[in-house]
Amino acid sequence: MKAEIISVGTELLLGTTINTDAADVAVLLSEYGINVYWQTVVGDNPGRVAEAVRRARERADLIITTGGLGPTCDDLTKSALADGFGIPLELNREEEAWLRGVFLERHYRPLTPNNLQQVWLPQGSTALRNDWGTAPGCYFEHEGVRVIMLPGPPGELRPMLEHRVRPILASLSDSVIASHNIHFYGIGESAMEYRLRSYMEELTNPTLAPYAKPGECLVRVTAKAPTVEEAERMMAPVIERVCREFGELVYGIDCPNLATYTVKLLMERGVTVACAESCTGGELQKCITDIPGASAVLLGGTVVYTNAAKTSLLGVPAALLEEKGAVSREVAEELARRVREKLDSDLGVGVTGLAGPDGDGEHEVGTVFISLADREQVWVREARLTGRGRGLVRHQACQEAFDMLRRYVSGLSVCGEGGAV
Amino acid sequence: MKAEIISVGTELLLGTTINTDAADVAVLLSEYGINVYWQTVVGDNPGRVAEAVRRARERADLIITTGGLGPTCDDLTKSALADGFGIPLELNREEEAWLRGVFLERHYRPLTPNNLQQVWLPQGSTALRNDWGTAPGCYFEHEGVRVIMLPGPPGELRPMLEHRVRPILASLSDSVIASHNIHFYGIGESAMEYRLRSYMEELTNPTLAPYAKPGECLVRVTAKAPTVEEAERMMAPVIERVCREFGELVYGIDCPNLATYTVKLLMERGVTVACAESCTGGELQKCITDIPGASAVLLGGTVVYTNAAKTSLLGVPAALLEEKGAVSREVAEELARRVREKLDSDLGVGVTGLAGPDGDGEHEVGTVFISLADREQVWVREARLTGRGRGLVRHQACQEAFDMLRRYVSGLSVCGEGGAV
Repeated sequence: MKAEIISVGTELLLGTTINTDAADVAVLLSEYGINVYWQTVVGDNPGRVAEAVRRARERADLIITTGGLGPTCDDLTKSALADGFGIPLELNREEEAWLRGVFLERHYRPLTPNNLQQVWLPQGSTALRNDWGTAPGCYFEHEGVRVIMLPGPPGELRPMLEHRVRPILASLSDSVIASHNIHFYGIGESAMEYRLRSYMEELTNPTLAPYAKPGECLVRVTAKAPTVEEAERMMAPVIERVCREFGELVYGIDCPNLATYTVKLLMERGVTVACAESCTGGELQKCITDIPGASAVLLGGTVVYTNAAKTSLLGVPAALLEEKGAVSREVAEELARRVREKLDSDLGVGVTGLAGPDGDGEHEVGTVFISLADREQVWVREARLTGRGRGLVRHQACQEAFDMLRRYVSGLSVCGEGGAV
Repeated sequence: MKAEIISVGTELLLGTTINTDAADVAVLLSEYGINVYWQTVVGDNPGRVAEAVRRARERADLIITTGGLGPTCDDLTKSALADGFGIPLELNREEEAWLRGVFLERHYRPLTPNNLQQVWLPQGSTALRNDWGTAPGCYFEHEGVRVIMLPGPPGELRPMLEHRVRPILASLSDSVIASHNIHFYGIGESAMEYRLRSYMEELTNPTLAPYAKPGECLVRVTAKAPTVEEAERMMAPVIERVCREFGELVYGIDCPNLATYTVKLLMERGVTVACAESCTGGELQKCITDIPGASAVLLGGTVVYTNAAKTSLLGVPAALLEEKGAVSREVAEELARRVREKLDSDLGVGVTGLAGPDGDGEHEVGTVFISLADREQVWVREARLTGRGRGLVRHQACQEAFDMLRRYVSGLSVCGEGGAV
């Protein structure tokens, strides 16, 4: 099966919006082994949309369009596309009723005729309910070509792909491509790849591919098989071998990221945390509280960005700050211990360091101390996150804190290679 | 002049790489008033590359390709493209000498015949020296169509666009396109568009276009003129009129966003801040400390995610929490006032609310109270950020806090339509 992706939007042609939609669609298609040979971007222009459709019909068995389904007058993909197939639009009564309900429920302004334009769909098509916006997508087959039309905003497109398009693709494909991600913390992509290289070359199906994300990396195991069950059977021994090889550097399988993994782990174990952040300035607590239900984990904490705040909020002795400096192992220890005591949590986390861009004349930019205290002891990790920008230093410092937390809760050595203070 | 962008790369069709190149090229073209009607993405396949070129020749005066110039065997844009025009490739002696020099100078491994493939260029083309990689681009004109071929890696493409392509476009175009963004807070995109519509319709050059970003919106003023100076002269009265029309809803011109604008304003005025965050869980302080030099503004603060933390860190009376509930105007007032006192800052900011997804049985999810205290009084704004996800509620609550701060420092009414408590 050959697919073609048509993205509609003048903002894409102007370059003010980057076309992430095409990549999202392509990734899903490749999961089902469906080849994409062409992607086309056209503006909100009926003639060119229709021309793109005519070209695609000659070349593809499946056409996926994104964009141009909304209520404003420049959203005309649907009519131009229907034009390209010679199919009229018709009002979809079911979607109309749904849309009217949505407007009432979400307290939108009154429905205008413009809004109703969204529920006119190509005759005979199946509506794809858009629970993440207001413009439904649709799916139809015409003279042997299948067409799926989807909304453009990524916040709508992504859940539509997952919940509406995936089942369609699964029904069209005779083989599935399944994959799992093995997540690592504490090893770089190139070191990981080096250790895996000969095994990767041995494998043809499943395959292994390494990926780097900011501050962590992963290996994707992918298998192609007639069924998901068969693909899972093929992947299991590969996953097991990689996990055995890397031991505690592997933190999880199929996780969104280390922060989410760690917070969920803390929730499951009923472990409470308090944080005292200097250089991360709130980012660590923001990452924790990004996750719904985090109030069961994070009791609270402080942002002690200045020395005065370290003293007034947590009682860190001014003499210690004077003697050792704010960026020190000793102050990191105090932060974790004192914030834990103050909030009576199971664990306390402290972060102090130099995020840059300016230095303090003593430490290199990127020097960060991350500490973890329980009721009995304190661990400190020193990280040298040099050569990165301010944003990455802060992000990585949070990652280090999450790694120490997940190690503590999992019964591993908290500092990894390092040790307890 | 009509341009068409052809991006070559199987990684783009697979979706593993997002096509930022096309957007970068498009932005530069639009600066010179060159319209783009089509973007096409094809894989590393000679037949399809040549087909894309043939189509583009029929539709465009200028074709810009990205990708496929490197030394590996899947880099074949140049030969396929030359094919599409019926032009042979020839070894460019000057680029060859340069490439040999680069290999010596950068201590690369010895040059292989593969590497030399990069300096075979379409006969009669002008090489575009690639000082950021090894594969040169090229520029030629054939039967009235101009062609610019550029490398795909963004780290090479971007400087090539700036230093090699910009001069070509400047020589082709007799006009420049310049633009400014006017940033708004406190009005939605559709309300803004509604108030501007008749003025927008009146204008042809400059033009006005509204854009929405999460939690704020902007109007872009764009002018086409023979010189930048002339474009600026044309835009000035339009910008002035929009600013006059919207008054204090306009917070700035050409700003990255409200947070950055506000923090820089606080820095300039030497105003210090302390924050007490409940539902935003550290995000407000993270946003402030994202900006280098924020330590001059943010003294510190607390994340008082639980009632116990509100009491233990800030001394908010347990009786008040009991009586009014954590999500209340009264508790918001206490947060701002107490954190300001605790850290002896000029201003205190408090945020308390319900970010969801779960409610508290009393308030609607999305109800947030944002407070600002100076040494004399406290203002509270109640925001109903309903119908959005947890992430957006939190983001918007931070935006409200920044709006109150920028209003306070600018001498405007802190709560806008509302008033002091």
